Amino acid sequence: MNQPLRLFDLAGADERLRFSPNCWRTRLALAHKGLPVDTLPWRFTEKQAIAATGQGKVPVLVDGDRWLHDSWTIAEHLEQAYPQTPSLFGPAPGHALARFVNQWTSETLHPAVARVVVPDIPAILHEKDRAYFRSSREAAFGQTLESLAAQREASLEALRRVLAPLRSTLAAQPFVSGDTPYYADHVVFGAFQWARTVSPVALLAADDPIAAWVERMLDAYGGLARTVAPAACAD
Amino acid sequence: MNQPLRLFDLAGADERLRFSPNCWRTRLALAHKGLPVDTLPWRFTEKQAIAATGQGKVPVLVDGDRWLHDSWTIAEHLEQAYPQTPSLFGPAPGHALARFVNQWTSETLHPAVARVVVPDIPAILHEKDRAYFRSSREAAFGQTLESLAAQREASLEALRRVLAPLRSTLAAQPFVSGDTPYYADHVVFGAFQWARTVSPVALLAADDPIAAWVERMLDAYGGLARTVAPAACAD
Repeated sequence: MNQPLRLFDLAGADERLRFSPNCWRTRLALAHKGLPVDTLPWRFTEKQAIAATGQGKVPVLVDGDRWLHDSWTIAEHLEQAYPQTPSLFGPAPGHALARFVNQWTSETLHPAVARVVVPDIPAILHEKDRAYFRSSREAAFGQTLESLAAQREASLEALRRVLAPLRSTLAAQPFVSGDTPYYADHVVFGAFQWARTVSPVALLAADDPIAAWVERMLDAYGGLARTVAPAACAD
Repeated sequence: MNQPLRLFDLAGADERLRFSPNCWRTRLALAHKGLPVDTLPWRFTEKQAIAATGQGKVPVLVDGDRWLHDSWTIAEHLEQAYPQTPSLFGPAPGHALARFVNQWTSETLHPAVARVVVPDIPAILHEKDRAYFRSSREAAFGQTLESLAAQREASLEALRRVLAPLRSTLAAQPFVSGDTPYYADHVVFGAFQWARTVSPVALLAADDPIAAWVERMLDAYGGLARTVAPAACAD
């Protein structure tokens, strides 16, 4: 590498607070491959900074003269561009099965986590992001964040049902990918790192096998994910 | 092998009608490995025939003097006992990721499919199984099968949401496991073979990428899964 990789990484008011589940996929993938990266704090409304990608969401990875967006595309790029580093997917059928885990996380798990934690997010955002966040999320949910917050117990119950297959998988093996983490673990963990960093609500019972795996993922890669503090409990 | 493998395989009134999703996992796994098997038609109430396993459900595979039950245990047994045949899982992390697909299928997909198709099952059962099936399923659902049938449109809508990650995965690759099927495909396909053989209700739109994959799975292994006819439409 002639120049370090750069990652536009969603941040809160405190720029050390990096809370995007999709950015955490990329952070952990880079750590898995041992690739150093400069992470640039980015806020929701800083669309201009990533306009080179033709869209407005992070993660955005800059690798030389290439600007890449979408966490799955970035993972595939890293796998192809750095073949001498540890694989994110392993041999076939690892890549294909990781895609299913990726899609389940994005399309089933994230919406269920969002209903629990999104009401807590405005409090940690930079002031300039708050109006954008509220209006875009209220449009997506079709209700106010306060209304969503009032349904939190029901949302937690729904989330616990969504988590059933993850729970029984992690009751039988230490990581989603087996004895050690691969990209499928990075993807699923992103959802829990998101919740951990933005909301004081506990998603998991202490004796849940998923909770033990979250701790293993917080320890992995030199404790990278622990470098962001958990959300403080409300007074 | 000194003697052929034997599989107790759930059957309807017509013994050619083999409709258990979990038995289909095993049928396809055996075909994947090129292992011949005698499939023995078995009805829900024939608990005595499989009493050697200490439980009352199929698939039950008899391999020499070993009686094995539970589709996942059987798959792991086949992988270990017949290492010279094509792998069901591929190298790590294939086995671990297939377990997640297995758990998602059993704990998320099957319950959603069941709400749609279970009301159609008594009509295809052997007379001796009907009372057992109705009482056990009505207890599990907490309602009559007629009540469940009356909710079919809502159940189909819920199923289509559950299928979102499978749909986007199969829009991007020909099989759940990539370019060719592995055990994860056998597992997920079992749910669709179940629906296909017991119910005239269409779960999928004709242009759904999942429907194209179902056709590929029906063609796989010499068209094994096509040897059972689809459920007839009600008059």
